[in-house]
Amino acid sequence: MQCFFVQIKTELGRAYDVADALARREIASEIYSTSGEYDLLAKFYVEDDVDIGRFVNENLHDIDGIRRTFTTLTFKAF
Amino acid sequence: MQCFFVQIKTELGRAYDVADALARREIASEIYSTSGEYDLLAKFYVEDDVDIGRFVNENLHDIDGIRRTFTTLTFKAF
Amino acid sequence: MQCFFVQIKTELGRAYDVADALARREIASEIYSTSGEYDLLAKFYVEDDVDIGRFVNENLHDIDGIRRTFTTLTFKAF
Amino acid sequence: MQCFFVQIKTELGRAYDVADALARREIASEIYSTSGEYDLLAKFYVEDDVDIGRFVNENLHDIDGIRRTFTTLTFKAF
Amino acid sequence: MQCFFVQIKTELGRAYDVADALARREIASEIYSTSGEYDLLAKFYVEDDVDIGRFVNENLHDIDGIRRTFTTLTFKAF
Amino acid sequence: MQCFFVQIKTELGRAYDVADALARREIASEIYSTSGEYDLLAKFYVEDDVDIGRFVNENLHDIDGIRRTFTTLTFKAF
Amino acid sequence: MQCFFVQIKTELGRAYDVADALARREIASEIYSTSGEYDLLAKFYVEDDVDIGRFVNENLHDIDGIRRTFTTLTFKAF
Amino acid sequence: MQCFFVQIKTELGRAYDVADALARREIASEIYSTSGEYDLLAKFYVEDDVDIGRFVNENLHDIDGIRRTFTTLTFKAF
Amino acid sequence: MQCFFVQIKTELGRAYDVADALARREIASEIYSTSGEYDLLAKFYVEDDVDIGRFVNENLHDIDGIRRTFTTLTFKAF
Amino acid sequence: MQCFFVQIKTELGRAYDVADALARREIASEIYSTSGEYDLLAKFYVEDDVDIGRFVNENLHDIDGIRRTFTTLTFKAF
Repeated sequence: MQCFFVQIKTELGRAYDVADALARREIASEIYSTSGEYDLLAKFYVEDDVDIGRFVNENLHDIDGIRRTFTTLTFKAF
Repeated sequence: MQCFFVQIKTELGRAYDVADALARREIASEIYSTSGEYDLLAKFYVEDDVDIGRFVNENLHDIDGIRRTFTTLTFKAF
Repeated sequence: MQCFFVQIKTELGRAYDVADALARREIASEIYSTSGEYDLLAKFYVEDDVDIGRFVNENLHDIDGIRRTFTTLTFKAF
Repeated sequence: MQCFFVQIKTELGRAYDVADALARREIASEIYSTSGEYDLLAKFYVEDDVDIGRFVNENLHDIDGIRRTFTTLTFKAF
Repeated sequence: MQCFFVQIKTELGRAYDVADALARREIASEIYSTSGEYDLLAKFYVEDDVDIGRFVNENLHDIDGIRRTFTTLTFKAF
Repeated sequence: MQCFFVQIKTELGRAYDVADALARREIASEIYSTSGEYDLLAKFYVEDDVDIGRFVNENLHDIDGIRRTFTTLTFKAF
Repeated sequence: MQCFFVQIKTELGRAYDVADALARREIASEIYSTSGEYDLLAKFYVEDDVDIGRFVNENLHDIDGIRRTFTTLTFKAF
Repeated sequence: MQCFFVQIKTELGRAYDVADALARREIASEIYSTSGEYDLLAKFYVEDDVDIGRFVNENLHDIDGIRRTFTTLTFKAF
Repeated sequence: MQCFFVQIKTELGRAYDVADALARREIASEIYSTSGEYDLLAKFYVEDDVDIGRFVNENLHDIDGIRRTFTTLTFKAF
Repeated sequence: MQCFFVQIKTELGRAYDVADALARREIASEIYSTSGEYDLLAKFYVEDDVDIGRFVNENLHDIDGIRRTFTTLTFKAF
């Protein structure tokens, strides 16, 4: 399994709509509202052969109210 | 031959459309979807007398879904 | 419990030394090496009355090889 | 195989020393000197189970003359 | 109680409209117009179990004339 | 009276030393440890004829462990 | 008297229209067109009890062609 | 004579239209397409009493396809 | 005469030493301590044939306690 | 021939030493002291087969007093 994090910046006042829409899709293992530049942080696990770029492109970017996302990959869990 | 790289930032959810459109033009020697600020990275080889600025301007910038590009030139391959 | 994330930038070539030192302290629930500007990402759970600023200051900042850290707090888990 | 790129910023006047040292290690498939913020760009292929963070940490960061590096992962080659 | 600060950037010429609208809601303990990148600074106290992300999302972001906000949490008062 | 805020970035692991030193001087009306780029936030009230630049220069900048400060002035309290 | 400076960024090609409009209002003691990120720099003197935030908000921000402004306050003249 | 440089960022795919329009005006002594953040670089010589701010404002900013410009003045030629 | 402004960032706690040293040289027409990123702002008038780059280089940069300066030229006074 | 520009940031107060050292090497076709973030701007012409990265690395970076450089390549002269 590959583990990666996506930080999500939403339109003003849309953070909880986006979090709810993402939760309903049941693809993230954890979703948080957070302090800082981004509004939300989500953690995902996908199979080793999944193309993460396409996964984010097809499963997140079409959620209404998202302004931009930033993906951080993990290499190893200690 | 001159070798250069172009990083491409696309509209939300358009990365793979842009990659496909670029691939169909058969002008890039390599195209990758990538982590980080940009969505795609492409490598190009052109003849020594080709104006790289015009090449990018005329062959990439008209692809629908591109938001901005960043060109890195190579001076020498070791 | 409060949940928060700390991103850690280390000195060149010290990322795994820092991760190992942090793991030995047994205070983080998850530690990852990551892509991007920071080298490591760690998740922490502390009691509601713990002062997070002091926790980071006293439990992380004295690990040798850390250059800087960035703390992101979570408000709610969906 | 996983493919990734590392951009390398060197100390003033050390770009070619670093490129030569990296070339002698025979771990990069391509090394270029480049225009822009970084001095060098290198492409690497490693096995799927290699921890890229550790690879960069152990195989690049100890080369004398490097100031900082930036790693870009590829998800898919078109 | 939790104490946090919100910096508010408004549309050109709207700083005092936004401050007045915020004051009428009687949710901030202090509101200032300020020098620097942001136009306003407000201090809030909420109960320990209040989700600050949702509070800002629902109580500030719908005020007309706000362009963006930045939230700073406090951990401890000395 | 003039009211202004000073954000303080400290050396790694020195945030609470600096906060304590500042508290002992009894010149700030409020001091917080905070999330974000800075470690501390302090609020000051000085007489109308006090030169704020000199005040910060002479009363804060000599505290050991401070890396940099950022001053935000208030124009009006609503 | 309080002395402060306002840097003004205008729409493309509107710098002199904005400067003329500002000059006609006879509220700035000096107006310059300048090099750098901003197009104009103006110096203002107002009475000690004037709210500078409101002054800029009401006397500058309604001039057509202004994109954004940045205010710098002076504490003391040597 | 005063010598100054103007870097020009154009709309996507418009760099050569802008360069051609600028060339037809016969006011720049040199025009280049370039690598990096800007698309074009132009050098100008004007009489000592020419207001450079107004010159750029009136002779460049009305060219269709320009997004923004950055002017660098020279003080002395060695 | 040419008119230009220099913003000066000083070492921590040195702003007034630098201002005093600059004042004693009697080359600036106005010196202010200021809010924001820089500590001081100074205005200079020099003859039309003075090389401003050399002026700053030779008359300011050797003052002890200066960290960096930023020069803004004026083109025209309205 | 290839034409490129190098912007040079020098140590405080060293801009003219660096310009003089560069001028004595007789490799730049034009050298200017400039406004803005960099202190100097130099234009170079080299043969088509010259490696520009190495040229800058070997001919500029060893001049005493340089802090950093930024190279801009030209693709075409209009």
